[in-house]
Amino acid sequence: MTSEDLMVRTALGSWKQSIAQVDKTLASLSDEDFQREIAPGRNRIYYLLGHLTAVNDRLLPLLRLGDRLHPELDDAFIANPDRTFPKDPLEPAALRSAWSDVSEKLLAAFERLRPEEWLERHDAVSAEDFAREPLRNRLAVLLSRTQHTALHEGQMRLAKRR
Amino acid sequence: MTSEDLMVRTALGSWKQSIAQVDKTLASLSDEDFQREIAPGRNRIYYLLGHLTAVNDRLLPLLRLGDRLHPELDDAFIANPDRTFPKDPLEPAALRSAWSDVSEKLLAAFERLRPEEWLERHDAVSAEDFAREPLRNRLAVLLSRTQHTALHEGQMRLAKRR
Repeated sequence: MTSEDLMVRTALGSWKQSIAQVDKTLASLSDEDFQREIAPGRNRIYYLLGHLTAVNDRLLPLLRLGDRLHPELDDAFIANPDRTFPKDPLEPAALRSAWSDVSEKLLAAFERLRPEEWLERHDAVSAEDFAREPLRNRLAVLLSRTQHTALHEGQMRLAKRR
Repeated sequence: MTSEDLMVRTALGSWKQSIAQVDKTLASLSDEDFQREIAPGRNRIYYLLGHLTAVNDRLLPLLRLGDRLHPELDDAFIANPDRTFPKDPLEPAALRSAWSDVSEKLLAAFERLRPEEWLERHDAVSAEDFAREPLRNRLAVLLSRTQHTALHEGQMRLAKRR
């Protein structure tokens, strides 16, 4: 294995760890628990899972890996704060499925990328800007979203029963 | 710049982002705010900052980068939960300094490592095990601690006043 291979596999290992941690926290929560807030007046578990699903789903076009699975989630989970709408847009079970489907599609796509492709620009930076700023690559986006996933999982776990 | 250089710089960018986010959250909190809990009955800001400082300080020996700055923090912030001891071990201002000193020493050491050194084993894995499991390298530890920092920063920010 080349050094680049090893580095990419290490980064993917970190990504997988962040997803597995969300899965573990979800497994400890019932669908009813999704209504719980992580702290008084703060986001519900339901919202945070929808938010993570929508943000990660956006990685598909951002990294040029294919079409999104759930663009319909953005309105409720990215563009607006929790409890904006009187009715939740999908059932907890459907949200769990959406999360799993996005995670699965992403991982399969990630594992097909060659190391040099991880160093190509992401889709929100122009070719000209990227020539000056080569750190605005796919790998940087992967690591940023890994952090983002870990951050919200750390909040979600606060709502677990003790 | 080689591909390995770019990958390591991308990973260090992610690390710096997680530290900068903690710094930003700390700048929005007063020393008195350190006593606030992130959620009812949960850790105080004070404890989480001590925990992050101690865990990151441990990276120095774990990555063979030098001696620890604050081994005395482990008892209060790693080995035991919040409020185990009747008196906090150090003042908030001293804890802020410890956090900054650890972050500074780590970053300077990280920036001196060459890409191939990031792929060397970390100090908690034996040479024999590492021969079979080359992903147990310094880079994996860096990414894992980046996630850990982001996770607790996501909790700390819940205690900010709105």
